[in-house]
Amino acid sequence: MHIREMLADAERSGEPSFSFEYFPPKTAQGVQNLYDRMERMHSWGPKFIDITWGAGGRIAELTCEMVVQAQTYLGLETCMHLTCTDMGEEKVNDALKRAYKAGCTNILALRGDPPREKEKWVASDDGFRYAGDLVEYIRKNYGSHFDIGVAGYPEGCDDNKDEDLLLDHLKEKVDKGATFIVTQMFYDADNFVRWVEKVRARGITAPIIPGIMPIATYASFLRRANHMNCKIPEEWMAKLEPVKNDDVAVREIGKTLVAELCRKVLAAGIHHLHFYTMNLAQATRMVLEELEWMPSADRPIKQALPWKQSLGLGRRGEDVRPIFWRNRNKSYIARTQEWDEFPNGRWGDSRSPAFGELDAYGVGLTGTNEQNRKKWGEPACIRDISNLFVRYLNKEIDYLPWSEAPVAEEADQIKDELIDLNKRGLITVNSQPAVNGVKSTHPVHGWGPSNGYVYQKAYLELLVSPELFTVIQSRIENHPDLTYHAVNKSGKLHTNARSEAPNAVTWGVFPGKEIVQPTIVERISFLAWKDEAYQLGTDWARCYEANTPSRLLLEEIMNTWYLVNIVNNDFHQGNTLFEVLSGLEVADLNKVPEPPVNGEANGVYQNGHSTNGVKAST
Amino acid sequence: MHIREMLADAERSGEPSFSFEYFPPKTAQGVQNLYDRMERMHSWGPKFIDITWGAGGRIAELTCEMVVQAQTYLGLETCMHLTCTDMGEEKVNDALKRAYKAGCTNILALRGDPPREKEKWVASDDGFRYAGDLVEYIRKNYGSHFDIGVAGYPEGCDDNKDEDLLLDHLKEKVDKGATFIVTQMFYDADNFVRWVEKVRARGITAPIIPGIMPIATYASFLRRANHMNCKIPEEWMAKLEPVKNDDVAVREIGKTLVAELCRKVLAAGIHHLHFYTMNLAQATRMVLEELEWMPSADRPIKQALPWKQSLGLGRRGEDVRPIFWRNRNKSYIARTQEWDEFPNGRWGDSRSPAFGELDAYGVGLTGTNEQNRKKWGEPACIRDISNLFVRYLNKEIDYLPWSEAPVAEEADQIKDELIDLNKRGLITVNSQPAVNGVKSTHPVHGWGPSNGYVYQKAYLELLVSPELFTVIQSRIENHPDLTYHAVNKSGKLHTNARSEAPNAVTWGVFPGKEIVQPTIVERISFLAWKDEAYQLGTDWARCYEANTPSRLLLEEIMNTWYLVNIVNNDFHQGNTLFEVLSGLEVADLNKVPEPPVNGEANGVYQNGHSTNGVKAST
Repeated sequence: MHIREMLADAERSGEPSFSFEYFPPKTAQGVQNLYDRMERMHSWGPKFIDITWGAGGRIAELTCEMVVQAQTYLGLETCMHLTCTDMGEEKVNDALKRAYKAGCTNILALRGDPPREKEKWVASDDGFRYAGDLVEYIRKNYGSHFDIGVAGYPEGCDDNKDEDLLLDHLKEKVDKGATFIVTQMFYDADNFVRWVEKVRARGITAPIIPGIMPIATYASFLRRANHMNCKIPEEWMAKLEPVKNDDVAVREIGKTLVAELCRKVLAAGIHHLHFYTMNLAQATRMVLEELEWMPSADRPIKQALPWKQSLGLGRRGEDVRPIFWRNRNKSYIARTQEWDEFPNGRWGDSRSPAFGELDAYGVGLTGTNEQNRKKWGEPACIRDISNLFVRYLNKEIDYLPWSEAPVAEEADQIKDELIDLNKRGLITVNSQPAVNGVKSTHPVHGWGPSNGYVYQKAYLELLVSPELFTVIQSRIENHPDLTYHAVNKSGKLHTNARSEAPNAVTWGVFPGKEIVQPTIVERISFLAWKDEAYQLGTDWARCYEANTPSRLLLEEIMNTWYLVNIVNNDFHQGNTLFEVLSGLEVADLNKVPEPPVNGEANGVYQNGHSTNGVKAST
Repeated sequence: MHIREMLADAERSGEPSFSFEYFPPKTAQGVQNLYDRMERMHSWGPKFIDITWGAGGRIAELTCEMVVQAQTYLGLETCMHLTCTDMGEEKVNDALKRAYKAGCTNILALRGDPPREKEKWVASDDGFRYAGDLVEYIRKNYGSHFDIGVAGYPEGCDDNKDEDLLLDHLKEKVDKGATFIVTQMFYDADNFVRWVEKVRARGITAPIIPGIMPIATYASFLRRANHMNCKIPEEWMAKLEPVKNDDVAVREIGKTLVAELCRKVLAAGIHHLHFYTMNLAQATRMVLEELEWMPSADRPIKQALPWKQSLGLGRRGEDVRPIFWRNRNKSYIARTQEWDEFPNGRWGDSRSPAFGELDAYGVGLTGTNEQNRKKWGEPACIRDISNLFVRYLNKEIDYLPWSEAPVAEEADQIKDELIDLNKRGLITVNSQPAVNGVKSTHPVHGWGPSNGYVYQKAYLELLVSPELFTVIQSRIENHPDLTYHAVNKSGKLHTNARSEAPNAVTWGVFPGKEIVQPTIVERISFLAWKDEAYQLGTDWARCYEANTPSRLLLEEIMNTWYLVNIVNNDFHQGNTLFEVLSGLEVADLNKVPEPPVNGEANGVYQNGHSTNGVKAST
């Protein structure tokens, strides 16, 4: 989606919006941490994010990678920065092509800072001299595919203080095809308002997005303001200087000052704020809280579908997903990456959806063996595993092998029942409660446009011991309301579903639309998920040394237990799924497995395929 | 669907089923009457119908035509009879090809009666001698496309009384590929049961369908029994002979005797009865009533979708239709006949559905001008039209220009509101009440598999005078729950719908399935319907002489009024549609239009296109 459309939306609806800016970190661990942070900050509801351009080599690569990650895996609408600095036509072309392929539709075209070693900025031989050249080039080569932003300087540029000349440049950039303006940081609201009037007086009508820099520490505040030649109002210094050694106080006062700045800017007819996060969450969050813009029951996050959409190229039309990957969103995108078309909302030929291999990036178990042992301990019996899952349901652990994120809020509704199941050795890996038509604005279950109603069939997915499976199967095989699929590691499928066709388990009814049914249960993708589910458990087992109780226990579960999913088709009934499993309990919750006498048994797993590179050390 | 599958269904479910046989009538009027009768009898729930083969020329043609009509327009699963009599390979091929193209998948292969003028039956030179040859030929050329039935003779064949020889023939026909057996008529249940045992003893396992001949009059009863050499039990004669001159008494006693016969047959393990209707409804209906097999709240008709599906070739996958043609089913099929694929349930490229022209068979107004004047009178003012529509809603008239069938049962729920609207000059041409999730077995609103829930958004389609339209538009333009489309004859569209995408107005949630949404409202097909709606009104106007009040009135309505549809997207609310129209009334309900002084005004309609060939006679 083009940024100017989002801005127009904000103006129409009268609901101001905001965006975040990030830059490519220097280390691999830094990149991973930033992705996690971006994902968390996504839930605050930014309309889009910016990724700054890392001029030169590796860091430029990283900008492109981060755009792919944000668009495709995090579902964040992304604006890629692009600078002239040291960039020839070939490099610009390459960057634009990669942005295009990532589904990115917004570029911020900048001249960029001169590389440190050069005194004065010089264009490369075949390169671009000004941001305007870049704007022109992108328009010429990509038509209206990209929305193009350019920088505005309310307080002058570091090598140019002539406001009128800068406005001439701005006018030129807009005339060449730029459609929105992002300003440098500033703290002087009055000057900004004055500048905006001057911009408008020049006949520049493109929307203006003010860049806001929250205050993290006194030192960084001064450093950045100085670096950008940004005037600090006297009142700000008077309030911040006395507490400069108290970071907490600086942030508290800073958030009030910045929020005040934001309010002044909004009062002047601006509808969107762009936050320079400096890759940090706290200072920005404090400003959003002060503005009362953080999501809440009064200000719910509007999500088009119950799962986070990918914005990768060709994926925007995707509107159906199997429920199995609900807690492993990124893995689902990775395994369906080759489906470059979603003409029926799912895939080209729905009868032969080829799921990607398990060794693709983002599919296997994350974390090192050591990290995982630390996180999940060393379970020696089923009861230990039960306890682990109970702790996850109680939000004492934030992820599990089969769930990459903390337990969903809607599970609260059935938390007691889920805990009860796990305590009895019925290990729940996925679930959703029944919902019989609540408003689409419902704080927990809601999604999609307002004035709609959303529905869910109750769903439960469990790991079940072979003994219990036999009992469960006999209880549900002929149940009029329940459909189940069960499979073990070897792939033998049991089901009472009469067809391979999808069973819609989440759907919504909206004004003026067809029924939207974004989540389904179906045989063929369950079998693809089963491979992943057993692989994740096997990866977990391999976090422990051979012949240790944890390794033996997890391997036994993976080798003999069933993965069972059950849908209650009567969405008016919430409890049937739990009633049908009542009274069942694994026979020997406390039994610790003993290593085989001759070590033979382990040979099986040594020959099995491993995706995390850990070998059995018999 | 193959007949043997329907029979297997009946056996599995333990719910006996039935079918009707018809023959090609001699006159065109007879054909039209029979189609109407077939459609009425369709609502009794036959699993399929048979069309007998009219040996030779025109009548053979008619059989093929009737198969097309039944499959495509009436949605009746049809079994086409085919005989050897006078049929060479070319003729057989032609008939099979036409059956195939009609979507027909069942053939009854017969030897056929010898033509009257020939003493003994002789095969044509390149023809088939026995039904078995025909079976073999169909299997060879069409594989398993057709289910093939053959005749069984529990009381012998008219030129062959040797039961064992006839059983040899039957065995041979089944061995050659026949999959079900339909018997000649009989009244001797015991003999039938004995014969079935003998058939089974021969190793013939194909299902047997007894042919049942209801009793209409004493004369026809005797004539048919004699013609078929069918033994009449003494008890039957004893009961019928004394009342032979009292047709009513004959039918009353006859229905009891035939129903008794049916019960004996069913008790012997038969699950399906085939009725020789002789193209008449009453005698068959009386037997079905006696058996308590007529549809009722206890025995509801099971319909897969809320509208009658076409069984034409390539149309069985169709599962979405615009609501506009709900009362003109056949016209919709005619106008979408060229859509030979329904890959997304509707049409290949949903953005360019080319609707057929208005002059196709079955699209225009049916009935002669005289018949229509007789049916609908000579309305001279809006109040007369209002009264006509009120009478339709009160079931005193069984069709209107825009509704080919009596008002739907579900309209009862909103009958008072609809009558009130019409009385105020808001002419309702289509409607459905809101339904917020009733069981799919609901006697009025239900459709689809059991254990499901069905929903509807309230819908209203009206003809509205230009003055009232302005008021209505201002009332609903910004209503949060209502979407409307309005258009006049010239095609100017008014709407508050934000997109051209379909709005689902009927949908169902079923176990183990995606959400089914068989009825929609959408812009592009509304514009196609609008052409038809205005044409129908114009056709009606032309039933009256030029310058008569009726002609002038109807022409004025067609030329100036709006066709308006309104959906209440909040399916929890039933009355909003009527509330929003409350208090509105056409200004001059009783005004009779006067002819123009110089006759000029009529020129407009003279140049308009006419589909019923009636010209303005100024």
